[in-house]
Parts: sequence; C-alpha cells; structure tokens
Amino acid sequence: MTDNLQQFMATEIPLMENTMYDLVESIAAPESLKEAMLYSLKAGGKRVRPLFVLAVLEHLQVEAKAGYAVGAAVEMIHTYSLIHDDLPSMDNDDFRRGKPTNHKMFGEAHATLAGDALNTLPFGIIARLDHVSAEVKLALINLLSETAGAEGMVGGQVLDIEGEQRQLTLEELIRVHENKTGAIIRFSIEAGALLAGATEQQRQLLVEYAYHIGLAFQIKDDILDIEGTTEELGKTAGKDEASDKSTYPSLLTLAGAKEKLAQHASKALHCLAQIPSDKKYLEDLTDYIVNRNK
Amino acid sequence: MTDNLQQFMATEIPLMENTMYDLVESIAAPESLKEAMLYSLKAGGKRVRPLFVLAVLEHLQVEAKAGYAVGAAVEMIHTYSLIHDDLPSMDNDDFRRGKPTNHKMFGEAHATLAGDALNTLPFGIIARLDHVSAEVKLALINLLSETAGAEGMVGGQVLDIEGEQRQLTLEELIRVHENKTGAIIRFSIEAGALLAGATEQQRQLLVEYAYHIGLAFQIKDDILDIEGTTEELGKTAGKDEASDKSTYPSLLTLAGAKEKLAQHASKALHCLAQIPSDKKYLEDLTDYIVNRNK
Repeated sequence: MTDNLQQFMATEIPLMENTMYDLVESIAAPESLKEAMLYSLKAGGKRVRPLFVLAVLEHLQVEAKAGYAVGAAVEMIHTYSLIHDDLPSMDNDDFRRGKPTNHKMFGEAHATLAGDALNTLPFGIIARLDHVSAEVKLALINLLSETAGAEGMVGGQVLDIEGEQRQLTLEELIRVHENKTGAIIRFSIEAGALLAGATEQQRQLLVEYAYHIGLAFQIKDDILDIEGTTEELGKTAGKDEASDKSTYPSLLTLAGAKEKLAQHASKALHCLAQIPSDKKYLEDLTDYIVNRNK
Repeated sequence: MTDNLQQFMATEIPLMENTMYDLVESIAAPESLKEAMLYSLKAGGKRVRPLFVLAVLEHLQVEAKAGYAVGAAVEMIHTYSLIHDDLPSMDNDDFRRGKPTNHKMFGEAHATLAGDALNTLPFGIIARLDHVSAEVKLALINLLSETAGAEGMVGGQVLDIEGEQRQLTLEELIRVHENKTGAIIRFSIEAGALLAGATEQQRQLLVEYAYHIGLAFQIKDDILDIEGTTEELGKTAGKDEASDKSTYPSLLTLAGAKEKLAQHASKALHCLAQIPSDKKYLEDLTDYIVNRNK
C-alpha cells in the first residue's frame, strides 16, 4: 500500500466509521438490537465500499461531507448481507474476521433482525442527507435499491447458492459475481459520481471502472482463498477448494485467474486515466485491491 | 362489512395486487427468487395496509394513481416481515393463511433472501413513482425507513421476542404493538396523507387516527386468537394462551380487552369525524377492523 493511500485511509476511515456508529447509536430502538447491529459494524473489515465513495469524491476533487454518510449506508448494506450469509441456513459460519458471527453472539432471531434493520436504515439515511439535492438523493436510493436487492446483491447470492450444487461455466460465474459483489461496488463508485455532480462522460467511465474493479476484487478473493493463510485472512483459507466450489482458479487455473486479474486491473486503470486528477487515491486503491494479501 | 366497503375492496384490491405482481415480475432477477417473492405476495391476506393508503386518498377525495404502487410497497414490507417471522429461528411456523410458509416451500436460505429482497425493493419503487414530487417521495422513503426498521417494526419484533420470556406490563405490551404492527399502519395512513397533499392539520388527525386504529387492530387480533376458530383464521387459534404470551386479554381480561378495543375504535372515528368527507370508506374500514372475525 502506498503512503498516499495509507494516509488517506487513516484520515477518512475513522471519519466514516464515527458517522456510521453515530447513525446507529442515535436511533430510538431497543438497546439489544442496536448492540447486535453495532457489533457487526464494529467487527472491522477493509471498508472497501465506503473507501470507493470517498476516493471517487477525491478523484473528482469535490468536497462532499455527505460522502461519509453514504459510505456508512453502503457499509451497513454490506454488513447486513454478511450477517444473513453467515446464518446456519446459509453458509453456517461461526467466525467472521476472527470474531464469533452475529448469530453466535446474539442468537439467530436477533441476527436475522439486526440484518433486516441494517437493510432498511440506509434508505432513511440517504433520504435525510444535508446539502444534497432531492434529485441526487432519489437517484442514490433508486441505485441502492437496484444494486442491493433482487436485481443485484440478493439475486447474486441466490445464484451463488444454486451454483454450489454444480460446476458453473465462466459466464455463469461472472454473472454471480457481477451481482453478488459487483453490484454494491458499482453503487459505491456511482454514488461518489452522483454526489460529486460528475459529467455524464465521467459517470460512464466510472461505471466501466466499477465493472472491472468489481471483478478484479472477486478474482483476488478467489486467489487469496488458495494462496492466503487462515491467519492473514481472518477466515478459513482453502474453503472453496474443500467444498468444490466453482471459482476463477478452478475454471481457469491459478495462472489463468492471475492473468484475468491483471487484465481487469489494467482496464480499470485505463478508465481512470481518462478522468485526469491530481489525486491518486483511486489508482492507489485499485493497486491495493489487486495486490492485497487479505 | 358494508356494501360500500365491499365494493371499494373489490375494485381497489385487484388493481393494487396487479401493480404489485407487475413490479416483481418486471425486475431482472433469478426466476427462483422471483417465484419465492411472488409466492408469499400471492398467498392472500386482508391487504389492510394498502387499503389504508387507498382509503385515505378516497377520504381526502384525491385521485392518486401512485396509491397502488405505494400500497404494493407497504404490502411487500409486511410480507417480508411475515416470511422472516415464520422462520424456524423465529416463530417456526409451517403454515400461514392455510398454505405452507415460504421456507417450507423454498427452503430457509431462499426464504431469508426472498424476505431481504422484499425489504429492499419498496424503496426503489417509491423513488421511481411517476407524478409525485421529489419532496413527497423523500418524505415517504424517510417514513418507511423509520416505521419499518429498528425504530418501528423490526424493533417491535425484537421487543416481542424478548417479552415472550416473561410477563409484560400493559405499558410494555403497548410499546411492542405500537412498533410491531402500529408503525407500518401509521406509514400506510400517513403515506396516503402525503400523496394526497393533506394539510398539516389533516395529517396530524390522521396520525392520531393511525395510533388508535393500529392498537385496535392488535387488540382485535388478540381477541380473535381466543374467540376465533383455526378454520376461520387460517392459522392456529389459541396459540397465545398455549404459549403463555402476554396479550391484552391476558392482562385486562377478555371483557377488559373488548372495552379497550371499543375505546380506541371510538377515538379513531372521532379523529376521522374532524376531516369531513363524502366518502365513508375509511369509517367503514375502521368498523370492519373492529368487527372482523378473521
């Protein structure tokens, strides 16, 4: 990771996190529910999605305080999906990021409801944003509903579950990931463009960038499942191979998956190069995603 | 039920339902997911929440086509909550309205995800409404996020689960129901007021009406659990008493609960009387809720 990105993250992530925790702590809800919501929000993670929102704003050199709240909103959606994915009826995971999963801490009923609450809250957060026009707020809400729901993340999760039973084609695998992880990454990047008031040309380049970095992110995840250690990853390594899951390395070989990763990374950077900027955070974030070891 | 209300329902419910089914059928999502979503949406029910949206519009004598989509949105939220409530980790119900519950038909993973998708979709539906101002859309989204989430329905569900372990006070029981069922009923009624462009005085009277009819609805449910038959209700009667659950009759006696019901019904009608209208649907709907046998 470059010093540049490290400094950016050290400044921006705590600001986003404090906004996110405040947004949950300030609601009038049962304490036990807020505790379960905050437990998973505070369990860490790379905060990649909020970083995309904030790095796009920096790239376009627009200061928008609302970026923290929108970053918090997308991190809540991501977190709810992890809580539900970990449930016994889904992936049945006891640990996430080295800590007991939400249902192990609070029971299945509370975990289901904490996830539900984290699915609903972000829409209100966006509707109440200060200093953002009504049109931009509605565009953000429409985009979040589309990318988080049946047409995006939830649909991708369904395809993923149904794909576990059989060998997928590369085309099918791409479709799973475009939806399961790609859609919410697209939201994060396009949200930054919407908040910054990007031109239509800039927005289109960023959507194309999002497509490539979203797939690169997932291919890297698949490679790390083979090459990473359980300690580094904070989750069990080698799980995909053990469960005979279709992944980029299983369909393309490890070398083939690495080549694909390099191609998407190069295309992603090519998109960014067409939106000149003094700030290099988005380029550095791209390199980080491609080269990370966890 | 009056002929007046019967005719209103016979006209309006199919229009709302067709809008609702179209809104799901038209999305680009895996067929298996859409099938699970539509299964529970089509499983029937009284459609009380959309009826409130539509009856408020009629009461205020404003024609708003968006009422069908907003009614569909709130019915989706209600349906997602039923799918998740029925899960083995929550109420563990095998039947709902005389049909197998969603997870009995599609498995727990798909039921969880169908619920998640029905939680997310309504926000996009509202954001995309035609012929509704951006300000009203944002007010609706903000209200739905608040009433459906941790501060409303989901919070009420948490209080309900935690209350099962012990005897509640009347105050605690009211708090459960204000949130668990009352909040979404308030959304439905206030949504009608927002869509109709009600005056501030009308809106406040309708919010007060919503408070009383919401509690009346729940008290009637508790009474029906004692007096109704499993056949009429389409769900197991006598379940509350068998599980030693705190209810209005258990805290107030059956006669006391009926008196409370009559009080809230009378106060609800008093609010409506202060918003003179040629249309009597909302009065008739109030009487129906108080006097129904299922």
